[in-house]
Amino acid sequence: MKRVEDYMTSIPDFPKEGIIFRDVTSVLESPEGYHLAIDELNKLLEGLDYDYIAGTESRGFIFGAPLAYMNNKGFIPVRKKGKLPRETVEMSYDLEYGSATIEIHKDSIKPGDKVVLVDDLIATGGTIEASAKLIEQLGGKVVKMIFLIELVDLKGRELLKNYDVASVIQYEGE
Amino acid sequence: MKRVEDYMTSIPDFPKEGIIFRDVTSVLESPEGYHLAIDELNKLLEGLDYDYIAGTESRGFIFGAPLAYMNNKGFIPVRKKGKLPRETVEMSYDLEYGSATIEIHKDSIKPGDKVVLVDDLIATGGTIEASAKLIEQLGGKVVKMIFLIELVDLKGRELLKNYDVASVIQYEGE
Repeated sequence: MKRVEDYMTSIPDFPKEGIIFRDVTSVLESPEGYHLAIDELNKLLEGLDYDYIAGTESRGFIFGAPLAYMNNKGFIPVRKKGKLPRETVEMSYDLEYGSATIEIHKDSIKPGDKVVLVDDLIATGGTIEASAKLIEQLGGKVVKMIFLIELVDLKGRELLKNYDVASVIQYEGE
Repeated sequence: MKRVEDYMTSIPDFPKEGIIFRDVTSVLESPEGYHLAIDELNKLLEGLDYDYIAGTESRGFIFGAPLAYMNNKGFIPVRKKGKLPRETVEMSYDLEYGSATIEIHKDSIKPGDKVVLVDDLIATGGTIEASAKLIEQLGGKVVKMIFLIELVDLKGRELLKNYDVASVIQYEGE
């Protein structure tokens, strides 16, 4: 029985020496790997009460969209600034070099809506924390954050200690 | 019984006067609308023999990914240049102003693979034609192109006359 991690590709010394880049595209491109990845993510949602799946642009779309469909939930795209056509709320956050700004539609969330955030990977957690703040700014509640891959040493869980965080695969000690 | 088009938002005079912008994000954000949209797209694939769903960044991911999952197919992301970590093939195409370059992984497709291309909307068809050429460059065959929305007057079907093109909603005369 293969596991999701068997479908992962690890690229040593990319983007720089000493970093192992964890590539999920080989999971997607395998019919068995992709199906298994979505099923494993879905298990993390068992018994949870929620209204929406929100996915971060753009690999979060690939993992979040099937979860929204199969659970009969709406899908909220968290997008980079300037991509959404209606009125938005935005949030900036720091990256290793520079900063980024993300947006969601202002009418996506009503006060009290329960939202699950989905992304392919959690590293330091900056993008997902900013996504959560956007949802909270509109009165929504982030009931869970789920990831296919967690880079444990980058300590995203510390930044996100006020949230319920879960991941399918954990990589440590690198 | 509501139809997918009942969940669409039309924004008059955006991005410029005289243009009606067809916004699919309100379809996504509705649990019923999104489920119906994916089911209607899936009907366009009934009886078709294919190996992969390829979606174009990034709204094509939101519609293509559930179709790949539910039909046990692999998902191939067609991405803007510079986003994919392994070796790629690329294709440039003209936009109204300037040009764009898209890529897929070189090892995504083997000769003879049968691929369905998915996007949210077909206008002039330039992006999807370039995506098809990438797949063909690697020896794959594009067996169908499906879209949630077709802007009929922009004549994408003429550009794509050598392909099997289908759409769920057609808007004409604007």
